[in-house]
Amino acid sequence: MRNISEDTITQAVLAAMSGCKNDRLHTVMISLVQHLHSFAREVKLTESEWTYAINFLTEVGHITDDKRQEFILLSDTLGLSMLTTTQNNSKPPTCTETTVLGPFFVEGSPDYENGEDISNGAAGLPCFVTGHVRGLHGEAVPNATLEVWQSDEDGNYDVQYAAKQQAEVKHQGRGRLRTLADGRFHFRSILAEAYPIPHDGPVGRMLEALGRHPWRPAHLHFWINAAGYEPLITHIFRNGDKYLDSDAVFGVRSTLVADWIEHPAGVAPDGTLMDTPFYTLDYEFVLNPVGAAS
Amino acid sequence: MRNISEDTITQAVLAAMSGCKNDRLHTVMISLVQHLHSFAREVKLTESEWTYAINFLTEVGHITDDKRQEFILLSDTLGLSMLTTTQNNSKPPTCTETTVLGPFFVEGSPDYENGEDISNGAAGLPCFVTGHVRGLHGEAVPNATLEVWQSDEDGNYDVQYAAKQQAEVKHQGRGRLRTLADGRFHFRSILAEAYPIPHDGPVGRMLEALGRHPWRPAHLHFWINAAGYEPLITHIFRNGDKYLDSDAVFGVRSTLVADWIEHPAGVAPDGTLMDTPFYTLDYEFVLNPVGAAS
Repeated sequence: MRNISEDTITQAVLAAMSGCKNDRLHTVMISLVQHLHSFAREVKLTESEWTYAINFLTEVGHITDDKRQEFILLSDTLGLSMLTTTQNNSKPPTCTETTVLGPFFVEGSPDYENGEDISNGAAGLPCFVTGHVRGLHGEAVPNATLEVWQSDEDGNYDVQYAAKQQAEVKHQGRGRLRTLADGRFHFRSILAEAYPIPHDGPVGRMLEALGRHPWRPAHLHFWINAAGYEPLITHIFRNGDKYLDSDAVFGVRSTLVADWIEHPAGVAPDGTLMDTPFYTLDYEFVLNPVGAAS
Repeated sequence: MRNISEDTITQAVLAAMSGCKNDRLHTVMISLVQHLHSFAREVKLTESEWTYAINFLTEVGHITDDKRQEFILLSDTLGLSMLTTTQNNSKPPTCTETTVLGPFFVEGSPDYENGEDISNGAAGLPCFVTGHVRGLHGEAVPNATLEVWQSDEDGNYDVQYAAKQQAEVKHQGRGRLRTLADGRFHFRSILAEAYPIPHDGPVGRMLEALGRHPWRPAHLHFWINAAGYEPLITHIFRNGDKYLDSDAVFGVRSTLVADWIEHPAGVAPDGTLMDTPFYTLDYEFVLNPVGAAS
């Protein structure tokens, strides 16, 4: 330990952790230190690159607040979020697949009845969403909770607007519903559009330096919870979107791509007489029972 | 790219970066993504652990400001700093070795003449430091700049004290000197003592969870610059310190351990009549010429 060199440092760090009483933490940290050091050796990380990385992470930390989570953006854009999601959610192939949570979920969004308009004034073309929540064998899942959230036509989630505007109209394009006795749900909202992840910070600069764009294909977020089933965090992606093959956060799975159907002005699925064109989406979610084999 | 799974995600991320025009950045990021993903797969990182990590890094970011650099502490305690330092500073064996910069260096510390007291009122036992700066063949290096910094007897660097106190007395225990025509330097300061790195934040909690202590053996920091020589960032460690074999940041090298000699009250090396005991340290630094083989 008095002759630390590039050849002995990794063993020295591992030895220092040998008294760790939390086995899982110990396992995780051994792997983390080994990979961190292997990375630094493999690229022969220079001192100025190390300084750059310290400053980059500091900036990521300083731009992060209760509305913006740049560390999640960093994890998402490096594929770590999707890797973590997929390796923890293997399930029977007929179940709806999982994708990333993303940085824009908010606790305590408002409750809506089926049929209500969750856009709450957010700008966008009208869209009527219908669907079912079912179990593995097609059985209806009643009383499931659906958290839904989405961006507006300008590609912004409500939490991305200035505090003043949010104080006036809170919770736009997000809400919580419950499935009916037959597992059905339906609500009105606005059409999901493609949008760039927030890219005016360090993660945006990283993407630009890597020759990557910040766009995500249009999608609607769902987080579904029901007694007896595993929670499902996922999106539904809009078929035809030009970013489906280059999602900035690597969240697309082909089973999660669905058709949003455009309709001329007329009667909407809920009976509303619409004087403008509108869209409809219908999707069936299949939940994995708790304790089912994957 | 529409069928991202735990098996395809790494290739998808690497493919997304294939347009990167900065070759070095491209190389670094390929290795970073591969090791990050290998780590997550190897330990099968769970979603709650991922959330814990996001929150941990957020806390590291939020406690970091212009006085406290928790990301450097994190890098130091995981051995990344020392690895980066050592692999970029291989030199002839007679040269003084490098160690970590640490988080407490400050730009613009005051200039002192040789013989002056750089403690500037910091609490501690008096210590007289003398030394030489030489080249590889023993030649004197005149006019070299020495940045010196250290903690006080309570283990705190000046920047760790409250803003109010710092406004009253700035720059304690730090200063900049130049070597004389014969490569010699000498100054008065206080005795370096062992101290814990700041451990009231997330890095401190990490160390505790890993069964590690936060202590560093007593040391004096030097950053030496001279025309025609590579810069030298190093510490001199105090022989006999009980933490020499368990430095929290893995910075110790046996060649950097030196004797601080205790003297009874009497005449100090600079002729001062001391009515209390005092310490002396003498050290010879050997710089590596620019362009020398390692």
